[in-house]
Amino acid sequence: MAGGRTTPAPRWEALFIYGEDAMTEYLRYPIPALQEYVTRFFVQLGVPPADAGIAADVLVAADVRGVESHGVIRLNTYYGSRLRKGVMSPVTVISTVNETATTLALDAGNGLGQVAAFHAMNRCLAKAAESGVAMVTVRNSNHYGIAGYYAMMALPHQMIGISLTNSQPLVAPTYGSTRMLGTNPIAVAVPAGENRPYVLDMATSIVPIGRVTVYKEKGEPIPAGWGVDSTGRVTDNPQAVLQGGALMPLGGVDVMRGYKGYGLALLVDIFSGVLAGSGFGKSVANPSDPTSASVGHFFAAVRIDAFRLLADFQQDMDALITELKTAPREAGQERIYIHGEKEFEMAERCEREGVPLLLPTVRALQQVGMDVGVPFDLEPVSG
Amino acid sequence: MAGGRTTPAPRWEALFIYGEDAMTEYLRYPIPALQEYVTRFFVQLGVPPADAGIAADVLVAADVRGVESHGVIRLNTYYGSRLRKGVMSPVTVISTVNETATTLALDAGNGLGQVAAFHAMNRCLAKAAESGVAMVTVRNSNHYGIAGYYAMMALPHQMIGISLTNSQPLVAPTYGSTRMLGTNPIAVAVPAGENRPYVLDMATSIVPIGRVTVYKEKGEPIPAGWGVDSTGRVTDNPQAVLQGGALMPLGGVDVMRGYKGYGLALLVDIFSGVLAGSGFGKSVANPSDPTSASVGHFFAAVRIDAFRLLADFQQDMDALITELKTAPREAGQERIYIHGEKEFEMAERCEREGVPLLLPTVRALQQVGMDVGVPFDLEPVSG
Repeated sequence: MAGGRTTPAPRWEALFIYGEDAMTEYLRYPIPALQEYVTRFFVQLGVPPADAGIAADVLVAADVRGVESHGVIRLNTYYGSRLRKGVMSPVTVISTVNETATTLALDAGNGLGQVAAFHAMNRCLAKAAESGVAMVTVRNSNHYGIAGYYAMMALPHQMIGISLTNSQPLVAPTYGSTRMLGTNPIAVAVPAGENRPYVLDMATSIVPIGRVTVYKEKGEPIPAGWGVDSTGRVTDNPQAVLQGGALMPLGGVDVMRGYKGYGLALLVDIFSGVLAGSGFGKSVANPSDPTSASVGHFFAAVRIDAFRLLADFQQDMDALITELKTAPREAGQERIYIHGEKEFEMAERCEREGVPLLLPTVRALQQVGMDVGVPFDLEPVSG
Repeated sequence: MAGGRTTPAPRWEALFIYGEDAMTEYLRYPIPALQEYVTRFFVQLGVPPADAGIAADVLVAADVRGVESHGVIRLNTYYGSRLRKGVMSPVTVISTVNETATTLALDAGNGLGQVAAFHAMNRCLAKAAESGVAMVTVRNSNHYGIAGYYAMMALPHQMIGISLTNSQPLVAPTYGSTRMLGTNPIAVAVPAGENRPYVLDMATSIVPIGRVTVYKEKGEPIPAGWGVDSTGRVTDNPQAVLQGGALMPLGGVDVMRGYKGYGLALLVDIFSGVLAGSGFGKSVANPSDPTSASVGHFFAAVRIDAFRLLADFQQDMDALITELKTAPREAGQERIYIHGEKEFEMAERCEREGVPLLLPTVRALQQVGMDVGVPFDLEPVSG
């Protein structure tokens, strides 16, 4: 953590974030310094300081949890460039469309998705605290980062949190050949007792599009089933998926029941797009499009003690988690994981050692920092 | 539909219910006659007539919708045998464990899952009509048939319905080798306008265990990825899955992201088992076990007009459905489906032509009908 002006040499390591792709080159940065930089970046582009702090916290949380595809790598492409082009509002003016004791429909005014979602989930938690359960939709928003961030906001309240969002079309429906639905994630966070919480945060496609890009850049074929070419045929050619092809929904090909993943992607679009009165299907714009994105979100919160004593629930969650973690394993496997566990361990390591940013991400931050007038001058943690 | 005492010859056809397995031999029966028979069967075993009618409607609905694995084929194995052994109560005494304006936790008193679930979903719909959203759990229940039945109860009320249940362990967690979680289905029904509703009703395993049995009986290998053997290795041997092996969760092997299906199966167990205060994980009994099953259910209902005008919602649902159905198709595919569409078409055909029962199912009904004292004397529809 020391510092000095000598930038440490990049380190190579098989990071969790790259899974089976093994060795990658990166530098580590202290979490608070990175948050502070991202906040300054947003403020420079006209975002009010409190909102900039929220957006920075969500973005850096992605890197800290090992979901680098939704982290600061997107600072310019998903947010900065849109603010500079004026296609996204730096000031997030949130208005109420409909409200009852248990429900709330919000309009984000084409502001920052993170700010709208943070506000919406807080409102949702307050309503659920009063009413037992609550649901909140957001329309006219933008990319909100990792879905799990907002679901996890329920955990300190000992509630169950749910967070869904639609996104730009990338996934072909079963028997279809073109991009019709987003990778529309489902995130659910559930508190436990002694054990860590259960935190599911999954795209409803098999992989995000960024995984396919990684294979293209390495010049390697993708596993057959991740995507289709422009005729709808399964391909192992990453370029064919990226150029006119599409991702496959969870499950993949018919015989493996890809229509279920397609059904889940559609379900997320119904809740976060149609129910919210936002864009849906092909009308959700890509962050790089020079138009409003029309992204929609959905949040829910559930008070556990409305159903049973919290202590009993926690005890049973612990029992179920322990039962799974101590179950007989496949030969050669060392651990059975609970959802969120890897991410909590990654976050603990980042707290100690700093958050890893890949070298191309660091270079991109240096470039865009110069363009915007907020030089990326952070000292990496010396290794 | 004519009748007369001459039983028509069984017909062979590639029924929807058998999908890629093609030709199967069956007889068709009028829906009302089959419902009436199943009702009499339950009444004979001590189930009050109104409850027997509910259970019969749910069971026959499965056959009518082409989900024969959850239809009258289970009349004895899942219900009759348990009632006769006294391990399930014929009278479903439902008690309230906890209640608020938006939530309800029920205890089914080890009665019929169908009766408890029907009651629970009706209570859920009434609460949602008042409050906007509602959630209901049921503990100490039994197998409730098709999850989609209860989700679809929301449709006449122009609400969104959700139905989840846990079930006996059949699915291995990712990296595990043994049966730890049920095939725990997720069902969600959403009304549309001109188009048919969206009705997702999916097990969170790739296939149900019955599919594997079909392959074993045909002496054919299963697609690699549906299941693992007793060491946790993927196998194409159906016998290895059935004897000491386990089903794989949706997604299958690691590279296809089976941990997502595992996460969904666990999520369903958390909502319908842990939140309900019912059995969960390995403590949920098999219907053939001579013990209480300790099955749990979860239901939710959402008033669409709490978020936006129903007519606007319906219009957007129609637009999204039509957009998907008219999207470019994979070469050689004739249709892109919306979830529930095949089942609605199957049901319409059954209304006209009668519901198909496979010959082994008919023979099993004849046998158990004699045992119980309610002879299965229905006349099949003449072909």
